[in-house]
Amino acid sequence: MLAYKVVNGEISRVIIAGGIHGNELIGVYLVKTFEKYGNLIERETFETICLLGNTPAINAGRRYVDKDLNRCFTKDILFNANTSIYEESRAKEIWQLLQPHHPQKLDAIIDIHTTTANMGLCMIINSMHPILLTLIAHLTSISPLIKVCFHPETPSGGFLRSLSELGFTLEVGPVPQGVLNAQLFQQTAKIVYAILDFFENYNQGKICINQKSNEKKLKVYEFIGTIDYPRNELGQLQGMIHPQLEYKDYQPLNFGEPIFLTFDNQEVFYQGESTVYPVFINEAAYYEKGIAMHLTQKKLVDI
Amino acid sequence: MLAYKVVNGEISRVIIAGGIHGNELIGVYLVKTFEKYGNLIERETFETICLLGNTPAINAGRRYVDKDLNRCFTKDILFNANTSIYEESRAKEIWQLLQPHHPQKLDAIIDIHTTTANMGLCMIINSMHPILLTLIAHLTSISPLIKVCFHPETPSGGFLRSLSELGFTLEVGPVPQGVLNAQLFQQTAKIVYAILDFFENYNQGKICINQKSNEKKLKVYEFIGTIDYPRNELGQLQGMIHPQLEYKDYQPLNFGEPIFLTFDNQEVFYQGESTVYPVFINEAAYYEKGIAMHLTQKKLVDI
Repeated sequence: MLAYKVVNGEISRVIIAGGIHGNELIGVYLVKTFEKYGNLIERETFETICLLGNTPAINAGRRYVDKDLNRCFTKDILFNANTSIYEESRAKEIWQLLQPHHPQKLDAIIDIHTTTANMGLCMIINSMHPILLTLIAHLTSISPLIKVCFHPETPSGGFLRSLSELGFTLEVGPVPQGVLNAQLFQQTAKIVYAILDFFENYNQGKICINQKSNEKKLKVYEFIGTIDYPRNELGQLQGMIHPQLEYKDYQPLNFGEPIFLTFDNQEVFYQGESTVYPVFINEAAYYEKGIAMHLTQKKLVDI
Repeated sequence: MLAYKVVNGEISRVIIAGGIHGNELIGVYLVKTFEKYGNLIERETFETICLLGNTPAINAGRRYVDKDLNRCFTKDILFNANTSIYEESRAKEIWQLLQPHHPQKLDAIIDIHTTTANMGLCMIINSMHPILLTLIAHLTSISPLIKVCFHPETPSGGFLRSLSELGFTLEVGPVPQGVLNAQLFQQTAKIVYAILDFFENYNQGKICINQKSNEKKLKVYEFIGTIDYPRNELGQLQGMIHPQLEYKDYQPLNFGEPIFLTFDNQEVFYQGESTVYPVFINEAAYYEKGIAMHLTQKKLVDI
């Protein structure tokens, strides 16, 4: 929603969001824990704000009540005077809360999500802001498990992270909806602390933001499209992720390799000519969106 | 619901149920596939009936609409004249459908479910009916991955499988709610075919039902209770399954071993004096039921 502008100003506020989807419990309970034990996330040079996204959906154990909240941060919805849809009015509330307090300073958004796909510990970014790239380079140096996806905002996007140029999603998995996984919970908490420490050091002038020095490269998976499941003319599901592709997020997929298995046991093969790197393979929430996986291309980005 | 009586009569009908829980997709799509390709499940000597349990919940992508259907097959509900709760009236419909057609013959129920717990391929039985035990011994001989849980019906039970003395649940996992896993889908289909073939051979007199010959033993995990998560005085969750216990279904749990990790990083240890064998560890649907895991004891049963 904000125009992309490189402002290397001080970071004023860091928003930690969880439960934007009510059945992604790691974010929900991390934010509740941070609210209870504020010392875990307090730092000297900026304010940290905990945001529990969708309380009615959390209480119902569902992703959303009326509509996916993480598709509601669009101009159309935010500038619309009245709406009876819960998630649309909640998006407007959150947007109001996140209006910048200091025009010359920056706010960052850490939006914690989980996925049923084998995404590991993934940061999804909208922009190649140099502060974000330097942050990610720092995080990957302390935890080689971290992956990076670049998913530029589209007009139909409406992700919470798009409200800030220092906004990103922490997407961790695989974990079922409605389930806590202690190991992923702890790993995600450690990443949040490392991010807060990075911002603290940045504000204290201890971190140099490289302006494309070409000295280091960052591996980034850039979103290029989606593939739907096999369906019949009524839109009904006719197949599932092929066992050979299951859990193979970030791995190369080449022409002719199997991607689906239909219920009557027919294999469906990938027909694209160039090698792609699927992510979000078999994400539960994407069946209704017509998405079996996202496709990305692998890039090396200068930092 | 039926009194336990050993009738070694012919099997008249086999009911294959899926989607009793709307977000357990393997059962839903297996039953839809069996409906479409009837030859997969047709046998000479009995009728096979496909039953899609909870269509409104399937369409909504949820376990249930008003109430868990697989807790509604109780006397109280089935003999209650009127109810406005969807699942209660659906339970009565199914119960009507499953009224025996031939008093001297048997109906079997295969109720297909999935779990987020690492249950593998599990058969859950209400009774030690000799036909069931012989069936299970046969299945475990062709697929050593199959496990057996004995969970006798309680008055508050209300499971679909309790409508027949040859009723059982096929519980497969781990798989998230709302997700298909092709490997588990295929493994479950194979078990269904093997069960149907067994019943066919039984009806044709090709199978001898052992009357406790003491020649063979079957390993059975017998339900003895449940444990809830750590909660505060308001009932709010305070912790999660300990990483050392996660995925350890069917494995021994001894006094003093860790079972939970609280959100503020405290370990909680098992205090029971005897060794138990937890199952349904971290099942998503059981958070709201106050169940972190079922406890079982391991028994060897003569067949």
